[in-house]
Amino acid sequence: MTDVMHRVALARRPNGDPVAEDFSYEEQPIPEPKEGEVLVRVTHMSLDPYMRGRMDDAKSYANPVPIGGTMEAGAVGVVLKSNHEKFKEGDHCFGMFGWATHGCLPGQQLRKLDPAIADPRTALGVLGMPGFTAWAGMTAYGKMKAGETLVVGAATGPVGSMVGQLAKQAGLRVIGVAGGAEKCNIAVEKFGFDACIDHRQFTTAKEMRGALHDHCPDGIDIYFENVGGPTLGGVIPLMNLHGRIIVCGMIAWYSGATDETGDMPLQKFWRTILVNRLTVQGLLQTDHVSRFGAFMKEIGPKVGSGEIAHMEDIAEGLENAPTAFMGLLKGKNRGKQIVKIS
Amino acid sequence: MTDVMHRVALARRPNGDPVAEDFSYEEQPIPEPKEGEVLVRVTHMSLDPYMRGRMDDAKSYANPVPIGGTMEAGAVGVVLKSNHEKFKEGDHCFGMFGWATHGCLPGQQLRKLDPAIADPRTALGVLGMPGFTAWAGMTAYGKMKAGETLVVGAATGPVGSMVGQLAKQAGLRVIGVAGGAEKCNIAVEKFGFDACIDHRQFTTAKEMRGALHDHCPDGIDIYFENVGGPTLGGVIPLMNLHGRIIVCGMIAWYSGATDETGDMPLQKFWRTILVNRLTVQGLLQTDHVSRFGAFMKEIGPKVGSGEIAHMEDIAEGLENAPTAFMGLLKGKNRGKQIVKIS
Repeated sequence: MTDVMHRVALARRPNGDPVAEDFSYEEQPIPEPKEGEVLVRVTHMSLDPYMRGRMDDAKSYANPVPIGGTMEAGAVGVVLKSNHEKFKEGDHCFGMFGWATHGCLPGQQLRKLDPAIADPRTALGVLGMPGFTAWAGMTAYGKMKAGETLVVGAATGPVGSMVGQLAKQAGLRVIGVAGGAEKCNIAVEKFGFDACIDHRQFTTAKEMRGALHDHCPDGIDIYFENVGGPTLGGVIPLMNLHGRIIVCGMIAWYSGATDETGDMPLQKFWRTILVNRLTVQGLLQTDHVSRFGAFMKEIGPKVGSGEIAHMEDIAEGLENAPTAFMGLLKGKNRGKQIVKIS
Repeated sequence: MTDVMHRVALARRPNGDPVAEDFSYEEQPIPEPKEGEVLVRVTHMSLDPYMRGRMDDAKSYANPVPIGGTMEAGAVGVVLKSNHEKFKEGDHCFGMFGWATHGCLPGQQLRKLDPAIADPRTALGVLGMPGFTAWAGMTAYGKMKAGETLVVGAATGPVGSMVGQLAKQAGLRVIGVAGGAEKCNIAVEKFGFDACIDHRQFTTAKEMRGALHDHCPDGIDIYFENVGGPTLGGVIPLMNLHGRIIVCGMIAWYSGATDETGDMPLQKFWRTILVNRLTVQGLLQTDHVSRFGAFMKEIGPKVGSGEIAHMEDIAEGLENAPTAFMGLLKGKNRGKQIVKIS
């Protein structure tokens, strides 16, 4: 066992798309856990699009990462040393350890994982924050009705693939949007979507609208928003009376890009909200934490049985986390992006 | 009794703000009621901003008025002749008679009014579509909590004044926006608003934001949208976490005008929805008609007792309806705009 750990820090704030120089790989001594704390060797950490937001110094639902601070991330690992009664050496747990090989947190901030129920790694994806986000949003705001049509972007990601499967199992027609033929194939073959549109074939909202219209002959009842950009612009004119838009993310816009849709005047959208009496609802999973137990009870067994499919894309080594993250923002991953640390 | 009636028809579609030449005043024989129909002499008709939308040939929640067709309106009147068992000569009733001195409609499309409960004219305003719209939106979507802050535009109009009073009675801080010092005074003195901002003092969203900020030190929890324009642009950055925006109308934009706020990119607003987890909900009262009885039961007695205040602005004569309507779109009315027909 080594006495040093590694972490990835924010070296400077990105200008648009992050580049390697925005991150620094640092070495430091492994901390000693204080009273009530637990020291964990991280085995896998999660990479998620929301992390791009933390790199900016703008108002959001969480504080930005300070320059020199460790990049934020949820991670799973094995307890090395515990000063908390609920954890003992060898236990598996989930915590916000950041981009790091080791973490030391108060025991009450950790969630113990039972490897008998599911691989601890699923706590980063299908049974973790992304899967829960999808479930929380759909159960709280989706108001799904059999026969309706749902559209979701980033269809093969851990949020989009859960959204689509929940909707299919509720009897909806499910159309995905993803980047590239391979992902579109995954959405249909692995996750059971009725169809999936390759957004790389289209650059404008108008073109996207045409493609969506072909697959949504009865219009769109629910749009689960992960992406923004031309997809959003294509969706808006097709929204049905009493449609619902759940705003969960906007990866196309995280790096400050503007596009044709970003420039759509609010006035035009406002009129659609009124005429079609849309509900537009911002979603953050932290508003729903009290229902995490209900989620695990409902979805946990379905992951075990394979009734809910999931897919992981595993990068090797903390030092490769920046590259994997930059790839994630460009849609290079296939399924939930995880970094294997040890 | 004369054998002819008059009506106001749409002569042509307006280009921006309506002008007198867009309307024509026409004479025709009074129709004979058929089986099941009721002939009504109209005493008062309603003028509402939504009518501007009907003059355009654009998709909305209702079909446009055809060229040469009678302008749409709700109205109250007295039965002249009835071929329907529920109505007899002399009864007061409400119906969609349009801009006309007489109307002939199937009895099941009419609502009988009891003059003992309230002046039949109130069926056009505080106890009619505008008052019901406000009540339906606030009860279905407002989720009011004592101590919160509500902002509503067109504060002295029949919708805005009801919204503000409902919110005050629920213990909210209520800030109105209206055009001119006189209306602002009415909002505070007659309708009990905590304050009212004169939007004519400000031309940009940024200026409006500053004024709103002064009156909403704890931010805005509910925005009841009647107006669009710079008021909307001023409100958005001040919306609190889990705030609600109820989109009921956008009078500043009905005549096709664009302004600084109309050009706000959707992208900017989208980010606010996500970060603050806003709910944006389009409102049309027809979605709530099943609750009209509950509205009358709750609000009717409060209008009688004066606990809910209302105000009417009465123009004289059908021939003056176009002028009164053009004035309404410019905010020249004080309270619910009504045209006295006979």
